[in-house]
Amino acid sequence: MNTYPLLESIRTPQEIGQFSLHLLEELAKEVRQFLIDSVNETGGHFSSNMGTVELTVALFHTFDFLKDRIVWDVGHQAYSHKILSGRWQKFSTLRQYNGLSGFLKREESPYDHFDAGHSSTSISAALGMAMARDLQKQDFACIAVIGDGGMTAGMAFESLNQAGYLDAKQFMVVLNDNDMSINPNVGSLQGYLNHIVSGQYYHKWQDRVEKAVQAIPLNTMKRLLGRFLKEGQAVVKRIAIPGLLFEDLGFRYIGPVNGHDMKSLIKNIEEAKKQMCEGPVLLHVQTKKGYGYSPSEQNPLKWHGINPSKASSDEPKPDSLEPNKPPPPSYTSVFGNTLTELANSDEKIVGITAAMLDGTGLNIFQKAHPNRCFDVGIAEQHAVTFAAGLAVQGLRPVCAIYSTFLQRGFDQIFHDVCLQNLPVTFALDRAGLVGADGPTHHGLYDLAYLRCLPNIVLMAPKDEEEFRHMIYTAIYCDSPTAIRYPRGLGVGVPISQELIPMPIGKGELLMEGSDIVIIALGTMVQRAIDVAKNLSAEDISCAVINARFAKPIDKELICKWVKNIGRVATIEEGCLPGGFGSAIAECLVDSNIKAPLLRCGISDHIIQHGSTDLLLHNEGLSCEEIANRIKVFMANTPLKLGVTATTV
Amino acid sequence: MNTYPLLESIRTPQEIGQFSLHLLEELAKEVRQFLIDSVNETGGHFSSNMGTVELTVALFHTFDFLKDRIVWDVGHQAYSHKILSGRWQKFSTLRQYNGLSGFLKREESPYDHFDAGHSSTSISAALGMAMARDLQKQDFACIAVIGDGGMTAGMAFESLNQAGYLDAKQFMVVLNDNDMSINPNVGSLQGYLNHIVSGQYYHKWQDRVEKAVQAIPLNTMKRLLGRFLKEGQAVVKRIAIPGLLFEDLGFRYIGPVNGHDMKSLIKNIEEAKKQMCEGPVLLHVQTKKGYGYSPSEQNPLKWHGINPSKASSDEPKPDSLEPNKPPPPSYTSVFGNTLTELANSDEKIVGITAAMLDGTGLNIFQKAHPNRCFDVGIAEQHAVTFAAGLAVQGLRPVCAIYSTFLQRGFDQIFHDVCLQNLPVTFALDRAGLVGADGPTHHGLYDLAYLRCLPNIVLMAPKDEEEFRHMIYTAIYCDSPTAIRYPRGLGVGVPISQELIPMPIGKGELLMEGSDIVIIALGTMVQRAIDVAKNLSAEDISCAVINARFAKPIDKELICKWVKNIGRVATIEEGCLPGGFGSAIAECLVDSNIKAPLLRCGISDHIIQHGSTDLLLHNEGLSCEEIANRIKVFMANTPLKLGVTATTV
Repeated sequence: MNTYPLLESIRTPQEIGQFSLHLLEELAKEVRQFLIDSVNETGGHFSSNMGTVELTVALFHTFDFLKDRIVWDVGHQAYSHKILSGRWQKFSTLRQYNGLSGFLKREESPYDHFDAGHSSTSISAALGMAMARDLQKQDFACIAVIGDGGMTAGMAFESLNQAGYLDAKQFMVVLNDNDMSINPNVGSLQGYLNHIVSGQYYHKWQDRVEKAVQAIPLNTMKRLLGRFLKEGQAVVKRIAIPGLLFEDLGFRYIGPVNGHDMKSLIKNIEEAKKQMCEGPVLLHVQTKKGYGYSPSEQNPLKWHGINPSKASSDEPKPDSLEPNKPPPPSYTSVFGNTLTELANSDEKIVGITAAMLDGTGLNIFQKAHPNRCFDVGIAEQHAVTFAAGLAVQGLRPVCAIYSTFLQRGFDQIFHDVCLQNLPVTFALDRAGLVGADGPTHHGLYDLAYLRCLPNIVLMAPKDEEEFRHMIYTAIYCDSPTAIRYPRGLGVGVPISQELIPMPIGKGELLMEGSDIVIIALGTMVQRAIDVAKNLSAEDISCAVINARFAKPIDKELICKWVKNIGRVATIEEGCLPGGFGSAIAECLVDSNIKAPLLRCGISDHIIQHGSTDLLLHNEGLSCEEIANRIKVFMANTPLKLGVTATTV
Repeated sequence: MNTYPLLESIRTPQEIGQFSLHLLEELAKEVRQFLIDSVNETGGHFSSNMGTVELTVALFHTFDFLKDRIVWDVGHQAYSHKILSGRWQKFSTLRQYNGLSGFLKREESPYDHFDAGHSSTSISAALGMAMARDLQKQDFACIAVIGDGGMTAGMAFESLNQAGYLDAKQFMVVLNDNDMSINPNVGSLQGYLNHIVSGQYYHKWQDRVEKAVQAIPLNTMKRLLGRFLKEGQAVVKRIAIPGLLFEDLGFRYIGPVNGHDMKSLIKNIEEAKKQMCEGPVLLHVQTKKGYGYSPSEQNPLKWHGINPSKASSDEPKPDSLEPNKPPPPSYTSVFGNTLTELANSDEKIVGITAAMLDGTGLNIFQKAHPNRCFDVGIAEQHAVTFAAGLAVQGLRPVCAIYSTFLQRGFDQIFHDVCLQNLPVTFALDRAGLVGADGPTHHGLYDLAYLRCLPNIVLMAPKDEEEFRHMIYTAIYCDSPTAIRYPRGLGVGVPISQELIPMPIGKGELLMEGSDIVIIALGTMVQRAIDVAKNLSAEDISCAVINARFAKPIDKELICKWVKNIGRVATIEEGCLPGGFGSAIAECLVDSNIKAPLLRCGISDHIIQHGSTDLLLHNEGLSCEEIANRIKVFMANTPLKLGVTATTV
């Protein structure tokens, strides 16, 4: 059992400002050991946090984050920040319900200045803080720490562009360069950063200067310059300013700095602190994901996030399966495999993702069809319009992006895909509640934000088998389509080999009944069946419809059953305002069917982190809760004998 | 009356490929004259089109756009493209219903390869096309033409970053640099481009080299280098590669090229065509907005878009006013003036826009409070999160962005504003139908895409007076708020001086009635009153509610009246799926009120360009249409005598 004497001795983070270099190094060692011990217990983001230990200690040494503002991009690399700002003793509750968040949270600590979870927002937020400070004539530093992955997102560029233009003082961007977002990084910016770090940028400059010299006609000049080139490497080195790209955008570039060398870090951060008085600084820090823990250093991707060894996993557990049966496949792997299978016989299928190759299962497709797989980096906007460009030339692009991250491509879905009615398929992994990642990551809004757009077809599968047919259907449907499906495992149904196109906008009746019709979508279909079974034990007869499509709605099937039975409940794992139940309400009022409707879904508030089962229970979406709500609803909506809901 | 002999002689655009330099120059003259003659008649985008005449002619000379792909960013500078691709004789129908679109449209011509209207999508789209071409082993060039304004948007950077990484062949970005988006451009990228164009970039390099030399300790080296510096300006010139920023992103930079010198254009475009075989090219063309027509050269902002001299304007006409009374103020000016007035007495109010200072009326605020006004350029994502950063530091930011453009900040509204429940006000100008700009510009989806987000308050004023109180209410409401309001003039009501906070989520009953209650929002409130008056002449008694809030809905008021009357219609100038009527449907079903509901709004399809009145009529939203629909609805939903809709 490790002890953490330094951590225990720190009463306020301000004390770190007085630490000697030796103590700072010791503190970093302790923090790293604590991370290894703690995150192995609780689970959570690992590699990224191992990489930022020294940087965080050095920043706490140089700044006072009760006064100075720091915005950690995404926030998943800020565990050391949490540890140093007095939360280490609460780490056993990390990412658990009512426990510490896996990201930064203003309500959690006065040291957290901005909430995040999505990438690339930090520079914008810190710049806003800096401008607010100047307008209010206050005095403190504003710092954004952003990874090289986050830097590829457009909004990072937008904010650099404005920061340089405003010549913001006391403002610094720390570029935490580990040459890797979750998947190894892509994009020419990364190539540029790699060139700086590796020294290739300098060689490129040597070439440039040599070429410039060779183009000079004058012979004497040439001799002169020949000597210059031979002896003047130091000059070239100074001309070949690394980070010129950032200088051209108005920043003072400092770096690259070894992010695990405390001495160098302190020296350069103090230099940055000085230069910040003049204008915006970009401090380029080179770190290594997983640093200091050899398993994660060797495979940072595997160790990006780890499952807790003690706490229960978020993944749905296949309770209902026989003990020796293998668990069902995850939706993610079903997606990757089905797409690959389809692409084997159709060269027109291409895959696109935004820095989520593994997370979306597109890595399976990439392996089989590397030249047809595009990982654009953290750049959802570009991903969508790039897919539109592929589609106008006759291909069938499939854009695999988490539900919550696709929000960033919303305008592009409308403007570039839906308005042109292009056959782009959006595969929305992590739709619904995602568990421990919490509010920034729940995929609750997709149905509402997509349903309003013209031409789009929206589906959600009830199980992994239906999912396969939906992928097939979506790709060959001549409209934009989106399939939303949950994080975690399928339900364990048999998988058929043949893929069959599903009629667009047609649901299926799963159970007949006479007291109420339950219309469910996606993950909630199985739950609806369970509810119906429970209720049948109490002599309540439920019809169950699997809607399959949230748009277009199967008006015919739904109206028929609602009219017959006269009472209806909808169940969805998504937001209630504007969501699936709302679509059913629209369908019924537009058809002038006056049947009472109970809408079960995620109500209109922020859902915190915690296990998905617990969160569903809190939202009244466990099997028991839904059954109870239906019973109360039925008691409040007695049907007159022999009277059915009609179109009057 | 001008004639266009060259234009008339061209049978196919391919013929331009054979034109001599002299003929190309003559053609450009004719196209420019045609633009002046034609756009003065029809109205439309002017300055930007005057700037791209030579560039377009030169591109048509060098490429064949039946085969080669060209994507004009936004598309509002592509009139010359339309003219040269055989549409000049249809120009009298420009931006009119069923006439030529003001943007490019695939269904309009085989020379249009991608639809647009929002900015900064062209590089992504063209890159997608290039990759599709390579995968299908086809052979043609893919070109994106983008303005310096469009280049500031994040997605432009995202796409450059991938294009450089992919080392895309036969792929070119033409940077049409006129140092101005609609408002003069901001951002350090523009500073960089200006430095290149003005030669300051070269001087900056001279300084860099001098500093590098001065840092050398060796005396002999220094002497050597002193001579080098003195004699070697040519070397420095070659070292100071303009466009290094683009080179660092993997592009071959060519430029800056005078975009009005046909000879230089042809030479450089041909050079670009050669270099494109090696990898991506960025051709930097310097143009002047309004070039060749002195009024627009002198004031390109005023001449950005012009009103037709013959066709009828889109602006609502104040028909109902007395002849000598001045027209009512536009919503845009009411916004600018009210915000300024409030800011005069509250230093915490700051304004943010994304390259739309004049369009949103924020220029009025800027004049009065320049240091509190931030134009971030075309960068909606950053604008939103920047506002969030200002808000966490205690300010009251007001983000003024057109409804349709705010779509690009959707994720940031959710992630950075709503999740943290920050008091950011979104002022959504151009909500509803916008007329001649068409599908990409109609602001139809805001209610649906914002209503699903937690914490947000959504309002729409019935007139300019209510608008003023709403602005006040929004700024001091401690939650995120959005106010949507239309393009064009107010309704001409008296304006009170005192601003009064409105109770959040409370509507107002405007008329009592007994046959049907009409619940309307924003622009449709006045229409609802007109409908009620019309119907009263036919003995139909309508109650009218001004909802004021689309979120939260005034459940109490609405339920009370719907229950009493038993029949309800909603009217909104927004999309039906998930919109305001949908919110009312949710409210009624959740309250178990079974009254028939008629939802009037924009149905779920793409609305083309045309006059707003005509488009509203087509959607069944003219006064007469609504009245008729209500009559039919009432006939289909007879109320039983003495029976009212109840919660059963």
